[in-house]
Amino acid sequence: MRPLITLLTDFGTADGYVAQMKGVIHTLVPEASIVDVSHEIAPHDVESARLTLARYWRRFPPRTIHVVIVDPGVGSDRACLAVASEERFFLGPDNGVLSPAMLLPGAEIVALPIPPNAAPTFHGRDVFAPAAAALAGGVSLAALGAPFPAPHIRRTPETQRRRDGAIEGQVISIDRFGNAVTNIAFVSRGSAELIVGSRVVPIVTTYADVERGAACGVVGSTGLIEVSVREGNAASTLELARGDSVVLRMIGR
Amino acid sequence: MRPLITLLTDFGTADGYVAQMKGVIHTLVPEASIVDVSHEIAPHDVESARLTLARYWRRFPPRTIHVVIVDPGVGSDRACLAVASEERFFLGPDNGVLSPAMLLPGAEIVALPIPPNAAPTFHGRDVFAPAAAALAGGVSLAALGAPFPAPHIRRTPETQRRRDGAIEGQVISIDRFGNAVTNIAFVSRGSAELIVGSRVVPIVTTYADVERGAACGVVGSTGLIEVSVREGNAASTLELARGDSVVLRMIGR
Amino acid sequence: MRPLITLLTDFGTADGYVAQMKGVIHTLVPEASIVDVSHEIAPHDVESARLTLARYWRRFPPRTIHVVIVDPGVGSDRACLAVASEERFFLGPDNGVLSPAMLLPGAEIVALPIPPNAAPTFHGRDVFAPAAAALAGGVSLAALGAPFPAPHIRRTPETQRRRDGAIEGQVISIDRFGNAVTNIAFVSRGSAELIVGSRVVPIVTTYADVERGAACGVVGSTGLIEVSVREGNAASTLELARGDSVVLRMIGR
Repeated sequence: MRPLITLLTDFGTADGYVAQMKGVIHTLVPEASIVDVSHEIAPHDVESARLTLARYWRRFPPRTIHVVIVDPGVGSDRACLAVASEERFFLGPDNGVLSPAMLLPGAEIVALPIPPNAAPTFHGRDVFAPAAAALAGGVSLAALGAPFPAPHIRRTPETQRRRDGAIEGQVISIDRFGNAVTNIAFVSRGSAELIVGSRVVPIVTTYADVERGAACGVVGSTGLIEVSVREGNAASTLELARGDSVVLRMIGR
Repeated sequence: MRPLITLLTDFGTADGYVAQMKGVIHTLVPEASIVDVSHEIAPHDVESARLTLARYWRRFPPRTIHVVIVDPGVGSDRACLAVASEERFFLGPDNGVLSPAMLLPGAEIVALPIPPNAAPTFHGRDVFAPAAAALAGGVSLAALGAPFPAPHIRRTPETQRRRDGAIEGQVISIDRFGNAVTNIAFVSRGSAELIVGSRVVPIVTTYADVERGAACGVVGSTGLIEVSVREGNAASTLELARGDSVVLRMIGR
Repeated sequence: MRPLITLLTDFGTADGYVAQMKGVIHTLVPEASIVDVSHEIAPHDVESARLTLARYWRRFPPRTIHVVIVDPGVGSDRACLAVASEERFFLGPDNGVLSPAMLLPGAEIVALPIPPNAAPTFHGRDVFAPAAAALAGGVSLAALGAPFPAPHIRRTPETQRRRDGAIEGQVISIDRFGNAVTNIAFVSRGSAELIVGSRVVPIVTTYADVERGAACGVVGSTGLIEVSVREGNAASTLELARGDSVVLRMIGR
């Protein structure tokens, strides 16, 4: 089977930086299949890249090599990491972006050596792309570098359970549709509503359960509660931003 | 030959929704070749996706599987469709986006069952991607679902022939260059001009037939008349939007 | 090995123009592997496409076919070119966009015939995509067209050495991060600083050598000096645009 390598960066495409990485990989492993995840992460937005990675990595088959380069610290002494976790591989800087893979039991983490001729501003091309090619060619993780025991970890902030049983959380990301994804995982089967600023919005199964233009909370495709506006944009309509507080309250129990 | 699957969505790429679909497909059909058409359709803009699909689907070889997910009604009772038409396959919601394939003689249309564990907000991942993989793996259309006799159809509005022989049409889309594509198919070989608001612009063979910055009408690459400005942006210069009226008038006959 | 074809355009993706080119190529050469470089070059910005091509083309393996369609003169009498240079192939209009390949010793250049049924507004689909497929299928460059002796050439403006030994150059591009890439190739090992408008900024090895938010000059990944702001955007902070003057001055020698 052809090795599968995915790319997630904040490079955009117009400057040719991603193309350089693709060229390096195709030169070293001509049979590799490269999958663009996105190059449209906002510049330096490590947190968004972490959340995006968390959404897709398990959907790819075992042995997939996930490369994630959102790297404001490139050229500093931050390490370049390679991770093996749950049968997939991960490559990226030591800034927490790979946390979804590193936090799992059994994750193995090594630090990649920086070749002396690597451009100090472009480890994506000179460190990570060659490492991805090496893994695609069958090199083991252990052969890539020395174990790295204490990586930088990022976690989604935890929700708080209040005395009245309500759960207090926050908006952790806004997607392209303006859906405000929260950190609240909703598992209860009772009726509930969401308090968003001065508004109370119902929790429903899907957008079509409310009128067009009305706000609702739904359990999104990753299992977290999202604030949405049917066929509209919740973030702009409700003026929501990352970090805003939301409260989930059970009804009639 | 490797199965070919194209993707057209309004998901953007940064949130990882497209990547989840790609992961599902690569897991089920590792040898598939996935082609990104675009993920930059404006959110919920079914009409744009329909027109874009009309432009490219025939250019791909027989057996190509075209997946089109612009789906403001996801999770409602709108059906999920699979279509076989002119030797290609098409997957998308029943909102008219697949009309270019469905309107052809001999098109076969089935409704896909929704698995009980499908996320009600993400049928692209949980319904359409597995169906694309099934078709790529050789499953027949008939095996995917029950015949669906009355799909929602969208059509490009028809032009009107006026008493004086002129043809009245409208702008149906604006492209990235600001070209305003109309619904007027120009087949005459005589001289003609276009009336756009208070302006009269000549119909020419190509942009270079007018001065830089001047407006013209050309027969675009899909056979429809477009209003353009040479090396400029017609939509902003002439303040054109979708739905604006344009009139084609023959000269000197 | 599968033929490798890269695409760089100013088409965006939403209108389906790029998809039409991909369909043509996949129909003619089903085993081809198509790599998206970018479709987000600003409309008609030949100069940006030329600089981007210069960055990536050598990173791809020999026999790669690089297609570059930024073509404001499409349909005029400008030629359509195919180039063989340093074991790679290049296809694009005769407006200088292929200069990075054409300027090399031994480059062979031919003009492609325009088929009579080619859309005068879309040579990417009707001239260049079929030519890319022909090269991918093993057709020789000489078989594609007649030698074209005098192509349009674009060059990066040269820097000037001043009497005091300083080097005067200019900003040639702004990347997605706001880094202002100059035309000054820095090879000295002494200390230096950069004069940018009324500011003096130090030349350092990497961004991390200055404080967050501070401006610096670094030797970018293509060997040219760039003006950057650590974890910020130099172009907006320092109000830099393409063409702005910058001066490199040695210190203490």
